[in-house]
Amino acid sequence: MGDIINGKILAEDFKQKIKAQIDEAVSKGYRVPCLATIVVGNDGGSIYYANNQKKLCDKLGLKNRSIFLEETIDEKDLILLIKELNEDNTVDGIMLQVPLPKNLNEEEITNLISPYKDVDGLTDFNNGKFYKGKKAFVPCTPRSVMHLIKSTGMDISGKNAVVIGRSNIVGKPVTQLLLNENATVTVCHSRTKDLKSVCKNADILVVAMGKPKFIDDSYIKEGAVVIDVGTSSVDGKICGDVDFDKVINIASHLTPVPGGVGSVTTTLLIKNTCEAWEKNVY
Amino acid sequence: MGDIINGKILAEDFKQKIKAQIDEAVSKGYRVPCLATIVVGNDGGSIYYANNQKKLCDKLGLKNRSIFLEETIDEKDLILLIKELNEDNTVDGIMLQVPLPKNLNEEEITNLISPYKDVDGLTDFNNGKFYKGKKAFVPCTPRSVMHLIKSTGMDISGKNAVVIGRSNIVGKPVTQLLLNENATVTVCHSRTKDLKSVCKNADILVVAMGKPKFIDDSYIKEGAVVIDVGTSSVDGKICGDVDFDKVINIASHLTPVPGGVGSVTTTLLIKNTCEAWEKNVY
Repeated sequence: MGDIINGKILAEDFKQKIKAQIDEAVSKGYRVPCLATIVVGNDGGSIYYANNQKKLCDKLGLKNRSIFLEETIDEKDLILLIKELNEDNTVDGIMLQVPLPKNLNEEEITNLISPYKDVDGLTDFNNGKFYKGKKAFVPCTPRSVMHLIKSTGMDISGKNAVVIGRSNIVGKPVTQLLLNENATVTVCHSRTKDLKSVCKNADILVVAMGKPKFIDDSYIKEGAVVIDVGTSSVDGKICGDVDFDKVINIASHLTPVPGGVGSVTTTLLIKNTCEAWEKNVY
Repeated sequence: MGDIINGKILAEDFKQKIKAQIDEAVSKGYRVPCLATIVVGNDGGSIYYANNQKKLCDKLGLKNRSIFLEETIDEKDLILLIKELNEDNTVDGIMLQVPLPKNLNEEEITNLISPYKDVDGLTDFNNGKFYKGKKAFVPCTPRSVMHLIKSTGMDISGKNAVVIGRSNIVGKPVTQLLLNENATVTVCHSRTKDLKSVCKNADILVVAMGKPKFIDDSYIKEGAVVIDVGTSSVDGKICGDVDFDKVINIASHLTPVPGGVGSVTTTLLIKNTCEAWEKNVY
Protein backbone atom coordinates (compact mmCIF):
# COMPACT_ATOMS: atom_id res chain seq x y z
CA MET A 1 0.00 0.00 0.00
CA GLY A 2 1.54 3.29 -1.13
CA ASP A 3 1.52 6.66 0.58
CA ILE A 4 -0.99 9.37 -0.23
CA ILE A 5 0.74 12.63 -1.21
CA ASN A 6 -1.22 15.24 0.67
CA GLY A 7 -1.40 18.49 -1.29
CA LYS A 8 -3.15 20.30 1.54
CA ILE A 9 -0.29 19.69 3.98
CA LEU A 10 2.26 20.86 1.38
CA ALA A 11 0.18 23.99 0.70
CA GLU A 12 -0.12 24.66 4.42
CA ASP A 13 3.66 24.60 4.71
CA PHE A 14 4.00 27.21 1.93
CA LYS A 15 1.23 29.32 3.48
CA GLN A 16 2.96 29.47 6.85
CA LYS A 17 6.20 30.64 5.20
CA ILE A 18 4.37 33.31 3.18
CA LYS A 19 2.47 34.51 6.27
CA ALA A 20 5.70 34.77 8.26
CA GLN A 21 7.37 36.72 5.44
CA ILE A 22 4.50 39.18 5.20
CA ASP A 23 4.20 39.60 8.97
CA GLU A 24 7.89 40.49 9.01
CA ALA A 25 7.48 43.00 6.18
CA VAL A 26 4.57 44.64 8.00
CA SER A 27 6.59 44.87 11.21
CA LYS A 28 9.30 46.66 9.25
CA GLY A 29 6.82 49.10 7.75
CA TYR A 30 6.98 47.81 4.17
CA ARG A 31 3.87 47.76 2.02
CA VAL A 32 2.37 44.26 1.60
CA PRO A 33 2.21 42.42 -1.77
CA CYS A 34 -0.80 43.01 -3.99
CA LEU A 35 -2.33 40.62 -6.51
CA ALA A 36 -4.74 42.01 -9.10
CA THR A 37 -7.18 39.40 -10.38
CA ILE A 38 -9.16 40.14 -13.53
CA VAL A 39 -12.26 38.16 -14.49
CA VAL A 40 -14.05 38.98 -17.74
CA GLY A 41 -17.56 37.57 -18.12
CA ASN A 42 -19.35 34.85 -16.20
CA ASP A 43 -17.16 31.77 -16.53
CA GLY A 44 -17.89 29.74 -13.41
CA GLY A 45 -14.36 28.38 -13.07
CA SER A 46 -12.80 31.85 -13.40
CA ILE A 47 -15.08 33.34 -10.73
CA TYR A 48 -14.40 30.37 -8.42
CA TYR A 49 -10.61 30.75 -8.77
CA ALA A 50 -10.77 34.53 -8.36
CA ASN A 51 -12.73 34.14 -5.13
CA ASN A 52 -10.24 31.56 -3.88
CA GLN A 53 -7.39 33.97 -4.60
CA LYS A 54 -9.14 36.73 -2.68
CA LYS A 55 -9.78 34.46 0.32
CA LEU A 56 -6.17 33.29 0.42
CA CYS A 57 -4.81 36.84 0.05
CA ASP A 58 -6.99 37.93 2.97
CA LYS A 59 -5.83 35.01 5.08
CA LEU A 60 -2.13 35.54 4.44
CA GLY A 61 -2.12 39.33 4.63
CA LEU A 62 -1.77 40.26 0.96
CA LYS A 63 -3.87 42.87 -0.78
CA ASN A 64 -6.13 41.64 -3.56
CA ARG A 65 -7.79 43.74 -6.19
CA SER A 66 -10.50 41.57 -7.74
CA ILE A 67 -11.76 43.21 -10.90
CA PHE A 68 -14.90 41.73 -12.44
CA LEU A 69 -15.70 42.99 -15.94
CA GLU A 70 -18.72 42.54 -18.19
CA GLU A 71 -18.39 40.03 -21.02
CA THR A 72 -19.28 42.89 -23.39
CA ILE A 73 -16.31 45.06 -22.35
CA ASP A 74 -14.55 46.88 -25.19
CA GLU A 75 -11.14 45.30 -25.89
CA LYS A 76 -9.55 48.76 -25.72
CA ASP A 77 -10.76 49.26 -22.15
CA LEU A 78 -9.35 45.90 -21.04
CA ILE A 79 -6.02 46.76 -22.68
CA LEU A 80 -6.03 50.13 -20.92
CA LEU A 81 -6.70 48.42 -17.57
CA ILE A 82 -3.77 46.03 -18.03
CA LYS A 83 -1.46 48.89 -18.97
CA GLU A 84 -2.55 50.81 -15.88
CA LEU A 85 -1.90 47.78 -13.65
CA ASN A 86 1.51 47.28 -15.32
CA GLU A 87 2.49 50.84 -14.39
CA ASP A 88 0.95 50.80 -10.91
CA ASN A 89 3.83 50.40 -8.44
CA THR A 90 1.51 49.08 -5.75
CA VAL A 91 0.50 46.05 -7.84
CA ASP A 92 2.98 43.14 -7.88
CA GLY A 93 1.09 40.40 -9.69
CA ILE A 94 -1.56 40.42 -12.42
CA MET A 95 -3.70 37.32 -12.82
CA LEU A 96 -5.91 37.43 -15.89
CA GLN A 97 -8.33 34.53 -15.69
CA VAL A 98 -8.57 32.65 -18.96
CA PRO A 99 -10.38 31.62 -21.09
CA LEU A 100 -11.51 35.11 -22.08
CA PRO A 101 -14.82 35.54 -23.90
CA LYS A 102 -14.50 34.68 -27.59
CA ASN A 103 -14.82 38.28 -28.80
CA LEU A 104 -11.50 39.19 -27.16
CA ASN A 105 -8.06 38.36 -28.60
CA GLU A 106 -6.76 36.29 -25.70
CA GLU A 107 -3.23 35.83 -27.02
CA GLU A 108 -2.67 39.51 -27.75
CA ILE A 109 -4.16 40.63 -24.44
CA THR A 110 -2.27 38.17 -22.22
CA ASN A 111 0.98 39.23 -23.90
CA LEU A 112 0.39 42.80 -22.73
CA ILE A 113 0.85 41.79 -19.09
CA SER A 114 4.25 42.97 -17.85
CA PRO A 115 6.51 39.89 -17.70
CA TYR A 116 7.55 41.00 -14.22
CA LYS A 117 3.94 40.87 -12.99
CA ASP A 118 2.91 37.81 -15.04
CA VAL A 119 2.67 35.58 -11.96
CA ASP A 120 0.83 32.77 -13.76
CA GLY A 121 3.40 32.63 -16.57
CA LEU A 122 0.94 33.40 -19.38
CA THR A 123 3.11 35.61 -21.60
CA ASP A 124 5.16 34.40 -24.54
CA PHE A 125 8.09 36.28 -23.02
CA ASN A 126 8.04 34.19 -19.82
CA ASN A 127 7.36 31.03 -21.80
CA GLY A 128 10.35 31.66 -24.03
CA LYS A 129 12.64 32.21 -21.04
CA PHE A 130 11.26 29.15 -19.29
CA TYR A 131 11.80 26.77 -22.21
CA LYS A 132 15.35 28.04 -22.56
CA GLY A 133 15.87 26.91 -18.95
CA LYS A 134 16.10 30.45 -17.58
CA LYS A 135 14.42 31.94 -14.53
CA ALA A 136 10.83 32.88 -15.37
CA PHE A 137 7.33 32.71 -13.94
CA VAL A 138 6.01 29.20 -14.57
CA PRO A 139 2.29 28.31 -14.59
CA CYS A 140 1.23 27.11 -11.16
CA THR A 141 -0.12 23.65 -12.03
CA PRO A 142 3.20 22.28 -13.36
CA ARG A 143 5.00 23.87 -10.41
CA SER A 144 2.57 22.11 -8.09
CA VAL A 145 3.31 18.78 -9.81
CA MET A 146 7.03 19.21 -9.22
CA HIS A 147 6.61 20.20 -5.56
CA LEU A 148 4.44 17.14 -4.97
CA ILE A 149 7.01 14.80 -6.57
CA LYS A 150 9.82 16.35 -4.55
CA SER A 151 7.80 16.09 -1.35
CA THR A 152 8.16 12.29 -1.58
CA GLY A 153 11.94 12.66 -1.18
CA MET A 154 12.60 10.89 -4.49
CA ASP A 155 15.84 11.77 -6.30
CA ILE A 156 14.49 12.65 -9.76
CA SER A 157 17.85 12.65 -11.60
CA GLY A 158 18.17 9.76 -14.06
CA LYS A 159 14.65 8.45 -13.38
CA ASN A 160 12.29 7.50 -16.18
CA ALA A 161 9.42 9.98 -16.16
CA VAL A 162 6.35 9.60 -18.34
CA VAL A 163 3.98 12.52 -18.92
CA ILE A 164 0.58 11.74 -20.44
CA GLY A 165 -0.72 14.87 -22.14
CA ARG A 166 1.04 17.62 -24.10
CA SER A 167 -0.99 20.71 -23.30
CA ASN A 168 0.61 24.14 -22.95
CA ILE A 169 -0.57 24.45 -19.36
CA VAL A 170 0.42 21.01 -18.03
CA GLY A 171 2.18 18.47 -20.25
CA LYS A 172 4.77 20.66 -21.96
CA PRO A 173 5.87 22.68 -18.93
CA VAL A 174 5.96 19.56 -16.70
CA THR A 175 8.21 17.91 -19.30
CA GLN A 176 10.55 20.89 -19.20
CA LEU A 177 10.62 20.96 -15.39
CA LEU A 178 11.36 17.21 -15.22
CA LEU A 179 14.20 17.67 -17.75
CA ASN A 180 15.57 20.48 -15.59
CA GLU A 181 15.81 17.89 -12.80
CA ASN A 182 17.64 15.45 -15.11
CA ALA A 183 14.85 12.92 -15.56
CA THR A 184 14.62 11.01 -18.85
CA VAL A 185 11.21 12.15 -20.04
CA THR A 186 8.74 10.52 -22.42
CA VAL A 187 5.74 12.57 -23.58
CA CYS A 188 2.65 10.51 -24.46
CA HIS A 189 -0.70 11.61 -25.86
CA SER A 190 -3.78 10.40 -27.73
CA ARG A 191 -1.69 9.12 -30.67
CA THR A 192 0.72 7.10 -28.54
CA LYS A 193 0.75 3.41 -29.39
CA ASP A 194 0.83 0.92 -26.50
CA LEU A 195 0.50 3.54 -23.77
CA LYS A 196 0.41 0.81 -21.15
CA SER A 197 3.89 -0.54 -21.83
CA VAL A 198 5.34 3.00 -21.88
CA CYS A 199 3.72 3.78 -18.52
CA LYS A 200 4.81 0.44 -17.05
CA ASN A 201 8.40 1.68 -17.41
CA ALA A 202 7.81 4.95 -15.52
CA ASP A 203 9.42 5.67 -12.15
CA ILE A 204 7.44 8.91 -12.21
CA LEU A 205 4.05 9.06 -13.95
CA VAL A 206 2.25 12.38 -14.45
CA VAL A 207 -1.26 11.95 -15.82
CA ALA A 208 -3.11 14.86 -17.45
CA MET A 209 -5.44 13.30 -19.98
CA GLY A 210 -8.92 14.24 -18.79
CA LYS A 211 -10.28 10.67 -18.78
CA PRO A 212 -11.79 9.79 -15.38
CA LYS A 213 -10.17 6.75 -13.70
CA PHE A 214 -8.54 5.72 -17.00
CA ILE A 215 -5.18 4.72 -15.46
CA ASP A 216 -5.48 1.57 -13.36
CA ASP A 217 -2.84 -0.63 -11.73
CA SER A 218 -2.03 -2.40 -15.00
CA TYR A 219 -0.32 0.83 -16.16
CA ILE A 220 1.87 1.23 -13.08
CA LYS A 221 5.42 0.09 -12.33
CA GLU A 222 5.73 -1.15 -8.78
CA GLY A 223 6.98 1.64 -6.53
CA ALA A 224 6.27 4.47 -8.97
CA VAL A 225 5.38 8.01 -7.90
CA VAL A 226 2.07 8.88 -9.57
CA ILE A 227 0.74 12.43 -9.93
CA ASP A 228 -2.87 12.81 -11.06
CA VAL A 229 -3.61 16.16 -12.71
CA GLY A 230 -7.05 15.14 -14.01
CA THR A 231 -10.15 16.94 -12.75
CA SER A 232 -13.26 15.59 -14.42
CA SER A 233 -16.71 16.01 -12.99
CA VAL A 234 -18.44 12.64 -12.54
CA ASP A 235 -21.89 12.50 -10.95
CA GLY A 236 -21.27 15.94 -9.47
CA LYS A 237 -17.96 14.93 -7.90
CA ILE A 238 -14.42 15.89 -8.95
CA CYS A 239 -12.58 12.81 -10.19
CA GLY A 240 -8.99 12.28 -11.39
CA ASP A 241 -7.56 10.31 -14.33
CA VAL A 242 -6.19 7.63 -11.99
CA ASP A 243 -8.21 4.82 -10.46
CA PHE A 244 -7.05 5.64 -6.94
CA ASP A 245 -8.20 2.47 -5.13
CA LYS A 246 -6.36 0.21 -7.59
CA VAL A 247 -3.22 2.27 -8.12
CA ILE A 248 -2.53 2.97 -4.44
CA ASN A 249 -1.80 -0.76 -4.05
CA ILE A 250 1.15 -0.70 -6.46
CA ALA A 251 2.47 2.90 -6.49
CA SER A 252 4.85 4.06 -3.77
CA HIS A 253 3.17 7.50 -3.71
CA LEU A 254 -0.04 8.82 -5.29
CA THR A 255 -1.88 12.14 -5.23
CA PRO A 256 -5.62 12.08 -4.51
CA VAL A 257 -8.20 14.15 -6.44
CA PRO A 258 -9.30 16.39 -4.83
CA GLY A 259 -6.60 17.10 -2.26
CA GLY A 260 -3.57 16.74 -4.56
CA VAL A 261 -2.26 18.98 -7.34
CA GLY A 262 -5.16 21.44 -7.18
CA SER A 263 -4.68 22.06 -3.47
CA VAL A 264 -1.32 23.70 -4.07
CA THR A 265 -1.85 25.84 -7.19
CA THR A 266 -3.50 28.93 -5.66
CA THR A 267 -0.86 28.99 -2.92
CA LEU A 268 1.86 28.91 -5.60
CA LEU A 269 0.20 31.85 -7.36
CA ILE A 270 0.44 33.79 -4.11
CA LYS A 271 4.04 32.59 -3.70
CA ASN A 272 4.86 33.94 -7.20
CA THR A 273 3.20 37.23 -6.29
CA CYS A 274 5.42 37.45 -3.22
CA GLU A 275 8.49 36.76 -5.37
CA ALA A 276 7.54 39.62 -7.72
CA TRP A 277 6.92 41.84 -4.70
CA GLU A 278 10.30 41.01 -3.12
CA LYS A 279 12.03 42.42 -6.19
CA ASN A 280 9.96 45.61 -5.98
CA VAL A 281 10.21 46.20 -2.26
CA TYR A 282 13.61 44.93 -1.09
CA MET B 1 21.59 -1.65 -46.26
CA GLY B 2 19.68 1.56 -45.53
CA ASP B 3 19.30 4.69 -47.64
CA ILE B 4 21.48 7.75 -47.18
CA ILE B 5 19.38 10.88 -46.61
CA ASN B 6 21.04 13.45 -48.82
CA GLY B 7 20.83 16.92 -47.28
CA LYS B 8 22.35 18.56 -50.32
CA ILE B 9 19.61 17.33 -52.64
CA LEU B 10 16.93 18.49 -50.19
CA ALA B 11 18.62 21.90 -49.92
CA GLU B 12 18.86 22.14 -53.71
CA ASP B 13 15.13 21.59 -53.95
CA PHE B 14 14.46 24.46 -51.51
CA LYS B 15 16.95 26.68 -53.33
CA GLN B 16 15.23 26.21 -56.66
CA LYS B 17 11.87 27.16 -55.16
CA ILE B 18 13.35 30.25 -53.50
CA LYS B 19 15.09 31.30 -56.72
CA ALA B 20 11.87 30.91 -58.70
CA GLN B 21 9.97 32.97 -56.12
CA ILE B 22 12.51 35.79 -56.23
CA ASP B 23 12.76 35.77 -60.02
CA GLU B 24 9.02 36.17 -60.15
CA ALA B 25 9.08 39.04 -57.64
CA VAL B 26 11.78 40.79 -59.67
CA SER B 27 9.76 40.37 -62.86
CA LYS B 28 6.83 42.03 -61.12
CA GLY B 29 8.99 44.93 -59.97
CA TYR B 30 8.96 44.10 -56.25
CA ARG B 31 12.05 44.69 -54.16
CA VAL B 32 13.97 41.50 -53.32
CA PRO B 33 14.32 40.12 -49.75
CA CYS B 34 17.23 41.34 -47.66
CA LEU B 35 19.02 39.48 -44.85
CA ALA B 36 21.24 41.49 -42.49
CA THR B 37 23.96 39.36 -40.91
CA ILE B 38 25.82 40.74 -37.90
CA VAL B 39 29.13 39.29 -36.72
CA VAL B 40 30.80 40.72 -33.62
CA GLY B 41 34.45 39.84 -33.10
CA ASN B 42 36.58 37.12 -34.69
CA ASP B 43 34.76 33.85 -33.94
CA GLY B 44 35.77 31.55 -36.78
CA GLY B 45 32.43 29.74 -36.92
CA SER B 46 30.46 33.00 -37.02
CA ILE B 47 32.55 34.40 -39.87
CA TYR B 48 32.26 31.12 -41.78
CA TYR B 49 28.46 31.05 -41.44
CA ALA B 50 28.14 34.75 -42.33
CA ASN B 51 30.16 34.21 -45.51
CA ASN B 52 28.00 31.20 -46.42
CA GLN B 53 24.89 33.30 -45.96
CA LYS B 54 26.28 36.00 -48.24
CA LYS B 55 27.23 33.47 -50.92
CA LEU B 56 23.80 31.88 -50.85
CA CYS B 57 22.00 35.25 -50.91
CA ASP B 58 24.06 36.23 -53.96
CA LYS B 59 23.27 32.94 -55.67
CA LEU B 60 19.53 33.09 -55.07
CA GLY B 61 19.05 36.79 -55.77
CA LEU B 62 18.57 38.13 -52.21
CA LYS B 63 20.32 41.17 -50.84
CA ASN B 64 22.69 40.59 -47.95
CA ARG B 65 24.07 43.19 -45.62
CA SER B 66 27.00 41.58 -43.83
CA ILE B 67 28.04 43.73 -40.92
CA PHE B 68 31.34 42.86 -39.22
CA LEU B 69 31.95 44.64 -35.93
CA GLU B 70 34.99 44.85 -33.67
CA GLU B 71 34.95 42.70 -30.54
CA THR B 72 35.47 45.93 -28.56
CA ILE B 73 32.25 47.56 -29.84
CA ASP B 74 30.27 49.51 -27.24
CA GLU B 75 27.07 47.62 -26.31
CA LYS B 76 25.06 50.80 -26.91
CA ASP B 77 26.24 50.99 -30.52
CA LEU B 78 25.26 47.37 -31.18
CA ILE B 79 21.84 48.02 -29.64
CA LEU B 80 21.43 51.11 -31.81
CA LEU B 81 22.34 49.11 -34.92
CA ILE B 82 19.72 46.44 -34.14
CA LYS B 83 17.08 49.09 -33.55
CA GLU B 84 17.93 50.73 -36.88
CA LEU B 85 17.67 47.39 -38.69
CA ASN B 86 14.35 46.70 -36.93
CA GLU B 87 12.95 49.95 -38.30
CA ASP B 88 14.49 49.67 -41.76
CA ASN B 89 11.70 48.62 -44.13
CA THR B 90 14.18 47.26 -46.66
CA VAL B 91 15.56 44.66 -44.20
CA ASP B 92 13.44 41.50 -43.77
CA GLY B 93 15.65 39.26 -41.65
CA ILE B 94 18.25 39.94 -38.96
CA MET B 95 20.76 37.20 -38.20
CA LEU B 96 22.91 37.98 -35.19
CA GLN B 97 25.67 35.38 -35.03
CA VAL B 98 26.10 33.96 -31.56
CA PRO B 99 28.02 33.45 -29.35
CA LEU B 100 28.70 37.15 -28.81
CA PRO B 101 31.94 38.22 -27.09
CA LYS B 102 31.69 37.79 -23.32
CA ASN B 103 31.57 41.53 -22.57
CA LEU B 104 28.16 41.81 -24.28
CA ASN B 105 24.84 40.76 -22.72
CA GLU B 106 23.82 38.19 -25.33
CA GLU B 107 20.38 37.47 -23.92
CA GLU B 108 19.36 41.11 -23.66
CA ILE B 109 20.72 41.98 -27.10
CA THR B 110 19.16 39.05 -28.97
CA ASN B 111 15.80 39.91 -27.41
CA LEU B 112 15.94 43.35 -29.03
CA ILE B 113 15.63 41.83 -32.50
CA SER B 114 12.13 42.44 -33.86
CA PRO B 115 10.28 39.11 -33.59
CA TYR B 116 9.13 39.64 -37.18
CA LYS B 117 12.75 39.79 -38.41
CA ASP B 118 14.12 37.15 -36.00
CA VAL B 119 14.65 34.60 -38.79
CA ASP B 120 16.80 32.29 -36.65
CA GLY B 121 14.26 32.19 -33.82
CA LEU B 122 16.58 33.61 -31.15
CA THR B 123 14.15 35.79 -29.22
CA ASP B 124 12.23 34.74 -26.13
CA PHE B 125 9.11 36.02 -27.86
CA ASN B 126 9.44 33.58 -30.77
CA ASN B 127 10.49 30.80 -28.42
CA GLY B 128 7.43 31.36 -26.27
CA LYS B 129 5.10 31.24 -29.27
CA PHE B 130 6.86 28.17 -30.65
CA TYR B 131 6.58 26.13 -27.45
CA LYS B 132 2.91 27.00 -27.24
CA GLY B 133 2.55 25.38 -30.66
CA LYS B 134 1.91 28.66 -32.46
CA LYS B 135 3.41 29.94 -35.69
CA ALA B 136 6.85 31.41 -35.00
CA PHE B 137 10.36 31.46 -36.42
CA VAL B 138 12.10 28.25 -35.38
CA PRO B 139 15.90 27.82 -35.26
CA CYS B 140 17.12 26.32 -38.54
CA THR B 141 18.87 23.19 -37.25
CA PRO B 142 15.72 21.62 -35.72
CA ARG B 143 13.77 22.60 -38.84
CA SER B 144 16.40 20.86 -40.94
CA VAL B 145 16.04 17.71 -38.82
CA MET B 146 12.30 17.62 -39.44
CA HIS B 147 12.61 18.20 -43.19
CA LEU B 148 15.14 15.35 -43.41
CA ILE B 149 12.84 12.95 -41.51
CA LYS B 150 9.89 13.90 -43.70
CA SER B 151 11.96 13.48 -46.87
CA THR B 152 12.03 9.72 -46.15
CA GLY B 153 8.25 9.59 -46.57
CA MET B 154 7.78 8.19 -43.05
CA ASP B 155 4.46 8.90 -41.34
CA ILE B 156 5.65 10.36 -38.02
CA SER B 157 2.31 10.19 -36.18
CA GLY B 158 2.30 7.61 -33.37
CA LYS B 159 5.94 6.65 -33.91
CA ASN B 160 8.39 6.34 -31.02
CA ALA B 161 10.94 9.12 -31.38
CA VAL B 162 14.01 9.37 -29.18
CA VAL B 163 16.02 12.59 -28.99
CA ILE B 164 19.48 12.42 -27.41
CA GLY B 165 20.40 15.88 -26.15
CA ARG B 166 18.32 18.60 -24.53
CA SER B 167 19.98 21.80 -25.72
CA ASN B 168 18.00 24.94 -26.47
CA ILE B 169 19.15 24.95 -30.09
CA VAL B 170 18.57 21.27 -30.98
CA GLY B 171 17.12 18.83 -28.44
CA LYS B 172 14.29 20.92 -26.99
CA PRO B 173 12.96 22.40 -30.26
CA VAL B 174 13.26 19.03 -32.07
CA THR B 175 11.20 17.47 -29.26
CA GLN B 176 8.53 20.12 -29.72
CA LEU B 177 8.47 19.69 -33.52
CA LEU B 178 8.17 15.90 -33.20
CA LEU B 179 5.30 16.32 -30.73
CA ASN B 180 3.61 18.67 -33.22
CA GLU B 181 3.71 15.74 -35.66
CA ASN B 182 2.15 13.41 -33.06
CA ALA B 183 5.22 11.31 -32.30
CA THR B 184 5.64 9.86 -28.79
CA VAL B 185 8.88 11.53 -27.79
CA THR B 186 11.52 10.50 -25.23
CA VAL B 187 14.24 13.02 -24.37
CA CYS B 188 17.55 11.46 -23.26
CA HIS B 189 20.75 13.11 -22.04
CA SER B 190 23.92 12.52 -20.06
CA ARG B 191 22.00 11.38 -16.96
CA THR B 192 19.84 8.84 -18.80
CA LYS B 193 20.23 5.31 -17.50
CA ASP B 194 20.46 2.49 -20.05
CA LEU B 195 20.49 4.76 -23.10
CA LYS B 196 20.93 1.74 -25.35
CA SER B 197 17.63 0.11 -24.48
CA VAL B 198 15.78 3.41 -24.86
CA CYS B 199 17.31 3.97 -28.31
CA LYS B 200 16.61 0.36 -29.34
CA ASN B 201 12.92 1.21 -29.12
CA ALA B 202 13.13 4.27 -31.39
CA ASP B 203 11.47 4.36 -34.81
CA ILE B 204 13.06 7.80 -35.17
CA LEU B 205 16.39 8.56 -33.49
CA VAL B 206 17.79 12.10 -33.42
CA VAL B 207 21.32 12.26 -32.04
CA ALA B 208 22.82 15.55 -30.81
CA MET B 209 25.30 14.59 -28.11
CA GLY B 210 28.66 15.78 -29.45
CA LYS B 211 30.41 12.41 -29.02
CA PRO B 212 32.05 11.29 -32.28
CA LYS B 213 30.80 7.89 -33.56
CA PHE B 214 29.27 7.10 -30.15
CA ILE B 215 26.07 5.54 -31.52
CA ASP B 216 26.75 2.21 -33.22
CA ASP B 217 24.39 -0.47 -34.56
CA SER B 218 23.78 -1.90 -31.07
CA TYR B 219 21.67 1.23 -30.31
CA ILE B 220 19.49 1.00 -33.40
CA LYS B 221 16.10 -0.63 -33.97
CA GLU B 222 15.96 -2.35 -37.34
CA GLY B 223 14.42 -0.03 -39.91
CA ALA B 224 14.78 3.15 -37.85
CA VAL B 225 15.24 6.62 -39.36
CA VAL B 226 18.43 8.07 -37.82
CA ILE B 227 19.33 11.77 -37.94
CA ASP B 228 22.87 12.69 -36.88
CA VAL B 229 23.19 16.29 -35.67
CA GLY B 230 26.72 15.84 -34.28
CA THR B 231 29.59 17.82 -35.78
CA SER B 232 32.83 17.05 -33.97
CA SER B 233 36.23 17.70 -35.46
CA VAL B 234 38.34 14.50 -35.51
CA ASP B 235 41.82 14.56 -37.10
CA GLY B 236 40.81 17.69 -38.99
CA LYS B 237 37.65 16.14 -40.39
CA ILE B 238 34.01 16.81 -39.45
CA CYS B 239 32.51 13.72 -37.82
CA GLY B 240 29.02 12.92 -36.54
CA ASP B 241 27.79 11.19 -33.37
CA VAL B 242 26.75 8.10 -35.33
CA ASP B 243 29.10 5.37 -36.54
CA PHE B 244 27.87 5.61 -40.11
CA ASP B 245 29.39 2.39 -41.52
CA LYS B 246 27.84 0.26 -38.78
CA VAL B 247 24.46 1.98 -38.49
CA ILE B 248 23.71 2.13 -42.23
CA ASN B 249 23.41 -1.67 -42.15
CA ILE B 250 20.47 -1.65 -39.74
CA ALA B 251 18.74 1.76 -40.14
CA SER B 252 16.26 2.27 -42.96
CA HIS B 253 17.52 5.85 -43.46
CA LEU B 254 20.55 7.72 -42.09
CA THR B 255 22.00 11.20 -42.58
CA PRO B 256 25.72 11.49 -43.31
CA VAL B 257 28.03 14.06 -41.67
CA PRO B 258 28.89 16.20 -43.56
CA GLY B 259 26.13 16.29 -46.17
CA GLY B 260 23.15 15.85 -43.83
CA VAL B 261 21.57 18.25 -41.34
CA GLY B 262 24.16 21.00 -41.83
CA SER B 263 23.63 21.10 -45.58
CA VAL B 264 20.10 22.39 -45.17
CA THR B 265 20.36 24.96 -42.34
CA THR B 266 21.62 28.01 -44.25
CA THR B 267 19.02 27.41 -46.95
CA LEU B 268 16.31 27.33 -44.26
CA LEU B 269 17.58 30.65 -42.89
CA ILE B 270 17.14 32.13 -46.36
CA LYS B 271 13.71 30.46 -46.58
CA ASN B 272 12.72 32.12 -43.26
CA THR B 273 13.96 35.45 -44.60
CA CYS B 274 11.75 35.01 -47.66
CA GLU B 275 8.77 34.22 -45.42
CA ALA B 276 9.37 37.44 -43.44
CA TRP B 277 9.71 39.33 -46.73
CA GLU B 278 6.47 37.90 -48.16
CA LYS B 279 4.56 39.47 -45.26
CA ASN B 280 6.22 42.82 -45.91
CA VAL B 281 5.91 42.90 -49.66
CA TYR B 282 2.71 41.09 -50.62
